[in-house]
Amino acid sequence: MDLWYTEKQTDHFGITAKIKRSLHTEQTPFQKLDMLETEEFGNMLTLDGMVMTTERDEFVYHEMVAHVPLFTHPNPKHVLVVGGGDGGVLREIIKHPSVEKATLVEIDGKVIEYSKKYLPTIASAFDDDRVEVIVGDGFMHIAESRDAYDVIMVDSTEPVGPAVKLFEKGFYEGISKALKEDGLFIAQTDNPWFKSDLIAKVYKDVKEIFPVTSLYTANVPTYPSGLWTFTIGSKKYDPLAVAEERFHPIDTKYYTKELHKASFALPKFVSDIIK
Amino acid sequence: MDLWYTEKQTDHFGITAKIKRSLHTEQTPFQKLDMLETEEFGNMLTLDGMVMTTERDEFVYHEMVAHVPLFTHPNPKHVLVVGGGDGGVLREIIKHPSVEKATLVEIDGKVIEYSKKYLPTIASAFDDDRVEVIVGDGFMHIAESRDAYDVIMVDSTEPVGPAVKLFEKGFYEGISKALKEDGLFIAQTDNPWFKSDLIAKVYKDVKEIFPVTSLYTANVPTYPSGLWTFTIGSKKYDPLAVAEERFHPIDTKYYTKELHKASFALPKFVSDIIK
Repeated sequence: MDLWYTEKQTDHFGITAKIKRSLHTEQTPFQKLDMLETEEFGNMLTLDGMVMTTERDEFVYHEMVAHVPLFTHPNPKHVLVVGGGDGGVLREIIKHPSVEKATLVEIDGKVIEYSKKYLPTIASAFDDDRVEVIVGDGFMHIAESRDAYDVIMVDSTEPVGPAVKLFEKGFYEGISKALKEDGLFIAQTDNPWFKSDLIAKVYKDVKEIFPVTSLYTANVPTYPSGLWTFTIGSKKYDPLAVAEERFHPIDTKYYTKELHKASFALPKFVSDIIK
Repeated sequence: MDLWYTEKQTDHFGITAKIKRSLHTEQTPFQKLDMLETEEFGNMLTLDGMVMTTERDEFVYHEMVAHVPLFTHPNPKHVLVVGGGDGGVLREIIKHPSVEKATLVEIDGKVIEYSKKYLPTIASAFDDDRVEVIVGDGFMHIAESRDAYDVIMVDSTEPVGPAVKLFEKGFYEGISKALKEDGLFIAQTDNPWFKSDLIAKVYKDVKEIFPVTSLYTANVPTYPSGLWTFTIGSKKYDPLAVAEERFHPIDTKYYTKELHKASFALPKFVSDIIK
């Protein structure tokens, strides 16, 4: 039998990946969860028919979500991840010795459960002493937090289903209050080829709240267009002004200190989106 | 009728694009040529079942092939394009006022013919006074040229079919002889996710011939993995040492002078390939 996973990333374009077998499929209270064993990318997690992560290319997204903000902040001690139930961002966060506590608030406990089972190299940090896991609503957690975090990372799904609220201006205002006075946050903000309106809106909203706002990119082959964006909102620290001596050695496959800065050099059509 | 173009970019992974109709299909003496009208990317040229260019995302590849070497060379007058029958690289080359002559050697005249017909915004430079078109074998043209070009751009297909010779060390040795004493060349060298062996081999070969060798990347959504590499071999000029004042204004949608330098900051796993 010749099985292929085909994802329509737009109405008219998508990717297709040969799969060995379906490992798990389930309608959780929040979304449709599928774990597939693919030929090219190892095990792959999809939610509502969209690739969230694969064993082969996950390092790009997880490293770029975690290390850009954590090297930007001079002394990040308490970090919050909203979403991120596969654990990949947590795994990267605890590589930073300054981090004393990493709190993850994932709305869908099933994502954590099946990531631990089928994506063990990604979900490898859940047992770390510094990690706290809350299965609950990240939006509410942010709304109830004050002056609590040095860095917040929004590792959400696309703005459909449970994540819709995580792309609204009120959420970013809540993040600002949940951050300490010199805190910063980063959110994944989709791709510039098919979702330029979303990027423009988020950037404008964040810029109205945070004195330092920047966009950076990374290449993720299994995400639409292969070019992913991340938006930073920061109260004080500029991700482009990190002193050379602050880049301590770190074990990565994508991130480097040179790429940290280079990832903010945007293609002309991308910088036009956020003008 | 619901028509989709599906390209297996590896044995186990690919892209799929909804098409409105097939505009032309032909077995030329060199390859299978298809021109498709797609919903998402406008008209699309494929050769032997691989996307060569689309109206929507062509600017990335063509700008990055042309402008990185042309801003690296302080005074490029005579430029050679090997391949590039769609005309996109030519269109970018003639934006540089120093260029007196741009010679294109394309082995397959049908590529030029149908690009003019169906990709007119890409094939827009063929009538420029500075452009010379030769329908012939680029490998042979290189072998017969001595001290002739300031910049050579290898805009080839993948190393299957007519382009196999264009990825061999002997070809790069020929390029070195065809270049003037301070000349440089650039070649498209596929993607680092699925073709790392090719990149490693080309880089090694080029490095044994040229004193300055570098790799840079760009995001092309319709190419495998979305991350494309380009290899530069240069006798004298370093693409990372371009003086600020040499970046004259130029009309682009992807290339910027900041991105020129940033595109050489490689993801860790890519720099490991060429170590």
